Amino acid sequence: MLRIPYPDLYEALRKAMLCLGLAEDRAALSARLFAETTRDGVYTHGLNRFPRFASMVQNGSINVHAEPTRTAAFGAIERWDGHRGVGNLNAYVAIERTIALAKQHGIAAVALANTNHWMRGGTYGWLAAEAGLFAMCWSNTLPNLPAWGTAVPTVGNNPLVIAIPRPQGHIVLDMAMSQFSYGTLAAYSKRNAPLPVPGGFDAHGNLTTDAAAIEATQRALPIGYWKGSGLSLVLDMLAAMLAGGLATHQLGSDPLREAGQSQIFIAIDPANLAATGELTQIAEGIIVDLHEKRPLNPAKPLRYPGEQTLHLREENLRLGVPVDPDVWHQINTMS
Amino acid sequence: MLRIPYPDLYEALRKAMLCLGLAEDRAALSARLFAETTRDGVYTHGLNRFPRFASMVQNGSINVHAEPTRTAAFGAIERWDGHRGVGNLNAYVAIERTIALAKQHGIAAVALANTNHWMRGGTYGWLAAEAGLFAMCWSNTLPNLPAWGTAVPTVGNNPLVIAIPRPQGHIVLDMAMSQFSYGTLAAYSKRNAPLPVPGGFDAHGNLTTDAAAIEATQRALPIGYWKGSGLSLVLDMLAAMLAGGLATHQLGSDPLREAGQSQIFIAIDPANLAATGELTQIAEGIIVDLHEKRPLNPAKPLRYPGEQTLHLREENLRLGVPVDPDVWHQINTMS
Repeated sequence: MLRIPYPDLYEALRKAMLCLGLAEDRAALSARLFAETTRDGVYTHGLNRFPRFASMVQNGSINVHAEPTRTAAFGAIERWDGHRGVGNLNAYVAIERTIALAKQHGIAAVALANTNHWMRGGTYGWLAAEAGLFAMCWSNTLPNLPAWGTAVPTVGNNPLVIAIPRPQGHIVLDMAMSQFSYGTLAAYSKRNAPLPVPGGFDAHGNLTTDAAAIEATQRALPIGYWKGSGLSLVLDMLAAMLAGGLATHQLGSDPLREAGQSQIFIAIDPANLAATGELTQIAEGIIVDLHEKRPLNPAKPLRYPGEQTLHLREENLRLGVPVDPDVWHQINTMS
Repeated sequence: MLRIPYPDLYEALRKAMLCLGLAEDRAALSARLFAETTRDGVYTHGLNRFPRFASMVQNGSINVHAEPTRTAAFGAIERWDGHRGVGNLNAYVAIERTIALAKQHGIAAVALANTNHWMRGGTYGWLAAEAGLFAMCWSNTLPNLPAWGTAVPTVGNNPLVIAIPRPQGHIVLDMAMSQFSYGTLAAYSKRNAPLPVPGGFDAHGNLTTDAAAIEATQRALPIGYWKGSGLSLVLDMLAAMLAGGLATHQLGSDPLREAGQSQIFIAIDPANLAATGELTQIAEGIIVDLHEKRPLNPAKPLRYPGEQTLHLREENLRLGVPVDPDVWHQINTMS
């Protein structure tokens, strides 16, 4: 495995962003968000995702010059249009605006239409938590999961992010509505290993842990079967309706042309409602209780969402960030 | 099966509430919410739940005279204390206050501490949707599910409600974080039928569809395994921290003394952000797409969350509301 010092990773991404035509400051910010995602161990949505991002700039799905604009506002809620710009830059503007509004009103929301894949959704949760706020954010996606009761892709895997600020380490849940991503299914089928739990249906309509069989049927499972199917549907409705944007069924079927997503950003600022000490005490009670539970495997103590991120972040900053040699070469030879 | 005209059901519940000591207007409202829940087909949290509710009044877990009070406020967010009053009355005040705040600010939240079981969570989603607002509400519960990685109950089944207003029929998702409730497991084990999908672990630590085996281990599954486990944890954290109330780990292990829950009510009023016609059009696009999908079983077309409720409501109003004869007798002989 190749490990690259974080500053070098960032610099390579920044130069690659400039090659794609982004303005200086926008190239720097987008590169930092990609680099931080890789540093935090979410490799699928960091450096490894960059070639797909570049292809979507080149095929016109992403407009590197577009900046989001506000289209409607009332009190603590706003609608923005992303003009099919760079997904992580649009989402960054949206969460920063949501944070500012929440500081003013206690709670706030921004609904963003016509944007692009935000890459790691957790990024926007971490940003809110770093500012001391709670956050709930989600995005719709193209239809990549059969709704419960059909074999046809209907709902998206619509990632949902929930963040809780905590001085000893923020809690950041970042989960898609699919039990396993197609990337994970591919990894299991490549090494011919069974999934840890059923991940979809085989050609006979039976639940299976055979990743290749699910890749063949494209009948991956939403979390909790009918429950995740329903949750995915309502997240899509909220996002598209509040943003005045596209819904899952309008986002096509080609991942390389999946553009125009709708996203929701909600933030809550507890600063004027409760003392920090009280919040910390409640959070610690919950985390200590979790950590005290006897693990089934003594080598695997219970962890809260985001806990592993801090370990990986520290390790990757210390040892260098792991990169795929092919992708690393590709980025360094862009021009 | 015994079917009772809706007005008779309501009247019997109202008299029973008066027997429990509720004041006239509070008895009428709480009875209406119980009756509507039964009318809508959510039998587990309507009439059939009343005997347990009565026991909890009698054992002192529920104070029928307590009314919720506001303890902190900033902009569009407020904290309320439920003083261990009647759960559905406290939650009714909370959602009504959230709706009023959201009409003023676009989005609003009420965090309610020290309350009691809200019975059907969907009730508060329907109320918001009837008023033309979107809503997200959830409650914590006592620990009744092992977190992922342990066999010990750690997280609650924390019901989550998401509501979307729609003139042709509101969309109301009302789902617990458990794949199956213990009530459902009991129903399957009683008739010795396999669960439709794995619902927990057996004594050997294997996933099973044997409901009795799961009742024996008490290792029921959160939806999506590790995903629902994480989601349940963060919903508990948000509820307890924002409300300044109790967390799941503090709610004991005795369902008959489960008191002091924390709940969150968020509402969004789209009225000043978008035209009703635009919202309806987006919603219809999504619902029509869902309904057009080819069902695996031609007799079971795809449905959105809440769609079945409207059918059951109409049927139960027409034919009478089904009641358990024993519970019906019990309520009519209270004094």
